[in-house]
Amino acid sequence: MNSFSEQLRAAGDEIWQQIHEHPFVVGMGDGTLEAERFAYYMVQDYLYLIEYCRLFALAATKSADLQTMGKFAELLHATLHVEMDLHRQYAAEFGLTPRDLETASIAPTAHAYSRHLLHTVQNGTIAEMITAILPCQWGYHEIAVRLKERGGLDNGSRYTAWVAMYASDEFKSLSDWLRGWLDDIAEDFTAAERRRLTELYLTGSRYEWMFWDMSYKMETWPV
Amino acid sequence: MNSFSEQLRAAGDEIWQQIHEHPFVVGMGDGTLEAERFAYYMVQDYLYLIEYCRLFALAATKSADLQTMGKFAELLHATLHVEMDLHRQYAAEFGLTPRDLETASIAPTAHAYSRHLLHTVQNGTIAEMITAILPCQWGYHEIAVRLKERGGLDNGSRYTAWVAMYASDEFKSLSDWLRGWLDDIAEDFTAAERRRLTELYLTGSRYEWMFWDMSYKMETWPV
Amino acid sequence: MNSFSEQLRAAGDEIWQQIHEHPFVVGMGDGTLEAERFAYYMVQDYLYLIEYCRLFALAATKSADLQTMGKFAELLHATLHVEMDLHRQYAAEFGLTPRDLETASIAPTAHAYSRHLLHTVQNGTIAEMITAILPCQWGYHEIAVRLKERGGLDNGSRYTAWVAMYASDEFKSLSDWLRGWLDDIAEDFTAAERRRLTELYLTGSRYEWMFWDMSYKMETWPV
Amino acid sequence: MNSFSEQLRAAGDEIWQQIHEHPFVVGMGDGTLEAERFAYYMVQDYLYLIEYCRLFALAATKSADLQTMGKFAELLHATLHVEMDLHRQYAAEFGLTPRDLETASIAPTAHAYSRHLLHTVQNGTIAEMITAILPCQWGYHEIAVRLKERGGLDNGSRYTAWVAMYASDEFKSLSDWLRGWLDDIAEDFTAAERRRLTELYLTGSRYEWMFWDMSYKMETWPV
Repeated sequence: MNSFSEQLRAAGDEIWQQIHEHPFVVGMGDGTLEAERFAYYMVQDYLYLIEYCRLFALAATKSADLQTMGKFAELLHATLHVEMDLHRQYAAEFGLTPRDLETASIAPTAHAYSRHLLHTVQNGTIAEMITAILPCQWGYHEIAVRLKERGGLDNGSRYTAWVAMYASDEFKSLSDWLRGWLDDIAEDFTAAERRRLTELYLTGSRYEWMFWDMSYKMETWPV
Repeated sequence: MNSFSEQLRAAGDEIWQQIHEHPFVVGMGDGTLEAERFAYYMVQDYLYLIEYCRLFALAATKSADLQTMGKFAELLHATLHVEMDLHRQYAAEFGLTPRDLETASIAPTAHAYSRHLLHTVQNGTIAEMITAILPCQWGYHEIAVRLKERGGLDNGSRYTAWVAMYASDEFKSLSDWLRGWLDDIAEDFTAAERRRLTELYLTGSRYEWMFWDMSYKMETWPV
Repeated sequence: MNSFSEQLRAAGDEIWQQIHEHPFVVGMGDGTLEAERFAYYMVQDYLYLIEYCRLFALAATKSADLQTMGKFAELLHATLHVEMDLHRQYAAEFGLTPRDLETASIAPTAHAYSRHLLHTVQNGTIAEMITAILPCQWGYHEIAVRLKERGGLDNGSRYTAWVAMYASDEFKSLSDWLRGWLDDIAEDFTAAERRRLTELYLTGSRYEWMFWDMSYKMETWPV
Repeated sequence: MNSFSEQLRAAGDEIWQQIHEHPFVVGMGDGTLEAERFAYYMVQDYLYLIEYCRLFALAATKSADLQTMGKFAELLHATLHVEMDLHRQYAAEFGLTPRDLETASIAPTAHAYSRHLLHTVQNGTIAEMITAILPCQWGYHEIAVRLKERGGLDNGSRYTAWVAMYASDEFKSLSDWLRGWLDDIAEDFTAAERRRLTELYLTGSRYEWMFWDMSYKMETWPV
């Protein structure tokens, strides 16, 4: 039988197919994505990652034991100093300083997604917390691996560094750890809990698609 | 000089003009709004109000003194038993039970707005909490008063009960209390705090417009 | 087999015997408790109840459905307007105004107990929340019923009103509701969860004893 | 005029004199403290530090900007890997494993103090958060510096490593940063805010004394 995390992924398969086929994702893979769309994405993703860091810090706060707390402290550190560093390097290519990144205005979808995650982690159980993070943490690796398989490291575009980082084993190990943890505790879930977690996973997956779509359309507030 | 709450309203005036001119709002006022759009709104607003109740409860938790706590407990009670009762009555007209209302799926904009509010109240100061609530609590009264002035109580449509409730003195007194409180404490705000609160008020006002627009378009999740 | 709440009570039986035999409790029952010790208790219990109200409000915030939220809103209302009213009446006998009560300094044990409860409700699951509240909500009824059986309503002392309120069916119904809820969801608890909840129940029971002891000794901060 | 942090220290001076004269502190300084009392302290302080880490993580979550978040992430890291490492080394001398430390039962005063801090950080402003932490972070350095001045590094006892770590410049820099931050924002405090913060500082200082007293008496739960 499939593990619980595999069942979640299967439940969201239709959404993930649409993510893989989204023009933003496809354009990063073959190098045809317009630079201005990517620049927009970099800024919004940076703002999102600031909130994502809050989320790892909150997860550390809510950890049941010291080992888990240490693990989330590592994730916090890795996000602050590795993942966000890539963004700062990209931003520099576009003439943007770290300060420009930090003080940009967050777009509606990035705002909504980050509040959704923070709200879930703040109010939910450990299982809800992991499930909420999973579409982002696991999904980015899946996307990057697919792009790599289709030549995403070799198209000579500015997007190869993105693909390289998220396809890396280091990045994979983070989602492996989260998935392993969820699968370990899944044995004790009630049917109602499984339904709620599946719904949460689907919501996160939808937000992932919406984030790419926001970036492609360079979304702004409607009023 | 204008009070701080008046300054906030002035900063958001352009957004509020667009709210007053939105076809959903105009349609409630002259009775031409299609029933299915209103039914959609009722369901989403009910789901939103459940989260709004959480917000009043949270505000009670965070109150500095017993009197404030009692006031928020009243707001919680009024929302649960008066405002949501109007929704249940409307819903019955459309053949929807309270259970149907409660178990409906929340749409993206209602989801985003409610998480925005809960996140702000959970993490913010008293001033941020009041400012976040104000566009909804004060704005609904402003809308209903305008619709009433333009004959919104006399068009014989199903929307007159909506206009009557939100234009009422009872409903007005709730936002008066919030405004008075904010204006009282505004004297001690720093310039940076005023800027942050203004930004928060504008975000809430934008979400108010987006909520009407969601209802008019009967928004669903894109994937 | 015993229900989970009965198992909790059995695990804490030794502590509860000591509570029933504590001179403060015994003295309320036979009317011999010194007035000044009771006055001290009234003040500290009032300060504790303010925090207890925050806790019910927080529970309303975290409720999974509207019905549960409504129930906690009722508990909040009952505590603010019924239970605390008894305290205000008692306080008036001692020449203390509501303002005196509210602005008194909280003693170490009342401080520690209220923070323990708030921390548990803020960070825990529904089961942890109910279990944390249970020693206070259920225990007061048990104490009052015992005192009533031993003539606590007939000794002509000022403490009969205390016994009457906490021995009442109205007060009983609140803990019955909490117990019934916990017992309903207990079927899905893992062994580790049961251990953690038992520990939490014991900690709360210990704080109950310590609260009576604090009141008897009229505890102050040591430095 | 004195800075705000100096004003706080002055307000708590009587408590801090009693801390410096407490037999536990004096005994660490001259090396006469009984090993079993120190072993008890090490275990309880380790349990306290686990909660203290949660607090830094929570502070990172609530940070207004990325730089502050990074600073709290560093404090979290330093506590997890430097300060707690000293405890693990001490514990090894007493034959205790990290697992023994982590699974020990927390004593009433350590429980109360940690819940007080977490509750304050979870619900308070930035200023309240810093003020709550200050008695511990700043006070340990003050204690260690005094013990060092009185020969606490040269008595050949097992306590010299404790004195060396908390008297170090590295440790000092953490409280300097917190104090500098508080003093910077203190200009905007209202009189009411200053009173509330002073009360919070005094409560923390009282808990510091109580923690030493708990350790000296090797406190256990009374029932």
